[in-house]
Amino acid sequence: MSRPGLMQLEDALAALLASVEPVSGTESSATFDADGRVLAQDLVSALNVPGHDHASMDGYAVRLADLQVAVGRPLPVAQRIAAGHAGQALQPGTVARIFTGAPVPAGADAVVMQEDAESAGEAGEEGGQASVRFKTLPSSGQWIRRRGEDVRAGTVVLPAGTRLGPAELGLTASMGYAHLPVRRRVRVALFSSGDELVMPGDVPPERMKPGAIYNSNRFFLRALLHRLGCEVSDRGIVPDQREATVAALRAAADSHDLILTSGGVSVGEEDHIRPAVQHLGGLDLWQIGMKPGKPFAHGWLDRPSPQGRCHFVGLPGNPVSSFVTFVVLVRPFLRRLQGLPLEACTLPKPQLRQAHFELAKGDKRREFLRVRLNAQGGLDLFHNQSSGVLTSVVWGDGLLDNPPDGVIRYGDDVHYLPFDTLLD
Amino acid sequence: MSRPGLMQLEDALAALLASVEPVSGTESSATFDADGRVLAQDLVSALNVPGHDHASMDGYAVRLADLQVAVGRPLPVAQRIAAGHAGQALQPGTVARIFTGAPVPAGADAVVMQEDAESAGEAGEEGGQASVRFKTLPSSGQWIRRRGEDVRAGTVVLPAGTRLGPAELGLTASMGYAHLPVRRRVRVALFSSGDELVMPGDVPPERMKPGAIYNSNRFFLRALLHRLGCEVSDRGIVPDQREATVAALRAAADSHDLILTSGGVSVGEEDHIRPAVQHLGGLDLWQIGMKPGKPFAHGWLDRPSPQGRCHFVGLPGNPVSSFVTFVVLVRPFLRRLQGLPLEACTLPKPQLRQAHFELAKGDKRREFLRVRLNAQGGLDLFHNQSSGVLTSVVWGDGLLDNPPDGVIRYGDDVHYLPFDTLLD
Repeated sequence: MSRPGLMQLEDALAALLASVEPVSGTESSATFDADGRVLAQDLVSALNVPGHDHASMDGYAVRLADLQVAVGRPLPVAQRIAAGHAGQALQPGTVARIFTGAPVPAGADAVVMQEDAESAGEAGEEGGQASVRFKTLPSSGQWIRRRGEDVRAGTVVLPAGTRLGPAELGLTASMGYAHLPVRRRVRVALFSSGDELVMPGDVPPERMKPGAIYNSNRFFLRALLHRLGCEVSDRGIVPDQREATVAALRAAADSHDLILTSGGVSVGEEDHIRPAVQHLGGLDLWQIGMKPGKPFAHGWLDRPSPQGRCHFVGLPGNPVSSFVTFVVLVRPFLRRLQGLPLEACTLPKPQLRQAHFELAKGDKRREFLRVRLNAQGGLDLFHNQSSGVLTSVVWGDGLLDNPPDGVIRYGDDVHYLPFDTLLD
Repeated sequence: MSRPGLMQLEDALAALLASVEPVSGTESSATFDADGRVLAQDLVSALNVPGHDHASMDGYAVRLADLQVAVGRPLPVAQRIAAGHAGQALQPGTVARIFTGAPVPAGADAVVMQEDAESAGEAGEEGGQASVRFKTLPSSGQWIRRRGEDVRAGTVVLPAGTRLGPAELGLTASMGYAHLPVRRRVRVALFSSGDELVMPGDVPPERMKPGAIYNSNRFFLRALLHRLGCEVSDRGIVPDQREATVAALRAAADSHDLILTSGGVSVGEEDHIRPAVQHLGGLDLWQIGMKPGKPFAHGWLDRPSPQGRCHFVGLPGNPVSSFVTFVVLVRPFLRRLQGLPLEACTLPKPQLRQAHFELAKGDKRREFLRVRLNAQGGLDLFHNQSSGVLTSVVWGDGLLDNPPDGVIRYGDDVHYLPFDTLLD
């Protein structure tokens, strides 16, 4: 059941995504340094990986026909092929000593691992060559990795919009790419708002004035933005004064794709960010049907063409509200800005887990409860779900996505979103 | 069923962990830059968070007794308290306009949100003060966040050994910490081994010699190490020559906690790393009952006291074997070296998921199959599980932990380890 006047989370996310295009601008990144970047173009392989049939075990390259004549017959070791060295074609009636990664010589059609071979004569004993015998008949192609088995030349191996991770870097390196075409990093200007905010270090705890609190949002928002791969300019705390706010926002808009604020966008009279953004561009204030995180502002600041608009997002000031709205709304928005495909710009698919607690009365709004997996694979609930209590996010390892008025009984299957899946 | 002669994965992990102590050495990190670091000491709060009772909604601070006399009676707005400003004690028969985060004045015992209030007279009309009336009787303590609700002064809020993430940074900032005591970063020297390895960029694809392959392991290993928060020195490719290998390893041992190699530690004759490490310290070559990733080397290099030993880990050269052994064995080892508690240095607890494929015959060894969650929440299997095929790790989003000889039927519950849980 939804409350009249509240915007549904899905609608808010759809509106955010409809307002944004991936940043234009492509640059070249060293593959070495490209973890977390987003591919700007389809990546096509110029070669087969592996480039040649090669041994995937240390052992002997053989001609099956020779062994089919008589298993156990001694065969001379006519050559020795190490990784990185090409051998000669394998003559009938001979075998080649071969090591993992070394190219399989022409004529060989299987590799026998060394554990399945035994010496039948040392080098120098009979005509100068060592010889071996094999206990069993290998199957055709055994312990050979085939040319192009991993990547075939000419195929698209990674599409544009791929977020590059460790495995992707390894794959592109295996194709010979020392540099990769990536979208430029998204630039975010981060502001906090509120007269009550004091920076840690500026005032010691024992000298904090009544009503003053340490600014915590800028610390976790900056870390969350960095984990997403954004460049972050921390512009500090905006004073609660209209003129200063207008000047600060205008300056930030010039060189950033997004201005992100926390605090200062509720319906309260003390907010100066809202009129400032309205003056410089436009702003919608949403009341989203979610808890925590109801108030959420979305807008833009005009810039001289051809720059176009700078995006604006205003998060609630309560730390938990700010954290939760960031991971459910700002993260997908930023992923789209970074160039990920639309289908990757959603909430991750939740896991079904059993609740190991009771919730006698659900909130009227869809609620993201802070929970933690226990040793039995069920979910425990943090005892204090107040939106000011950041300890719930530290204690928890994920969110339970509970529908409006959702009553939870012990053992019910519920929707669980691990933080692991919400941070990149 | 286990094979004789093979070491079980649990035993290998236990042996690794038994060999390692957290790095000694503590440094101070700016809270701003401490994402991913490990706390070196218990963190105690010097203050209550919040420091004072304050409003958690924009509205009016009231004395319940006044409203209990008659709901709907107009009450004068005697003061106005913004966040960061202390108000006066609330006189009987008056209310205070109050904003989110502002301290609740003495005498007030509830906050009524502004949506539940209506004007009963503008300022200047009757004796100069605005007045409001309320539609409903608030409950005691309503919309007030209590002093110490988040953190109580003197309590340990984060124990030593905590990996700091965005939420932890926010919490420590809210307690006034501008700097945090953290363990120094673990320093890892990374080597690749193999004559066949060519660096991307050094030789274009069309000029690669037979048997030559691009080095991909150093790219993903470096990224994996960075994600874990290690300092990485990439020492490049060690030539397949004993003397050069001894010299390179000796130099690296001086200034690193761990030397990590990939390739060059199998039972093949072409390995020069093994004798070099044995010369400089000691080495065990394990045959682990897992697939991919059977050969795994663990040892140490002696250094002049008081430095003690430098650890050595040799991963298999095949990319997938290297990747999988890193996440299941090296990751827990490194977490311990970084100072995480032993119980956090294991494989993560797997999820139970349904297999949406058949595996008619399981491997004799415990196998980590590359799989991907599908839209139905089941697991699909990558078609090629060869340990040379890095595309399986790119395609997949996790590992299926299959026991020795484990046959899988469509719909069976299997153990799934998402990569998300294996990368930090």
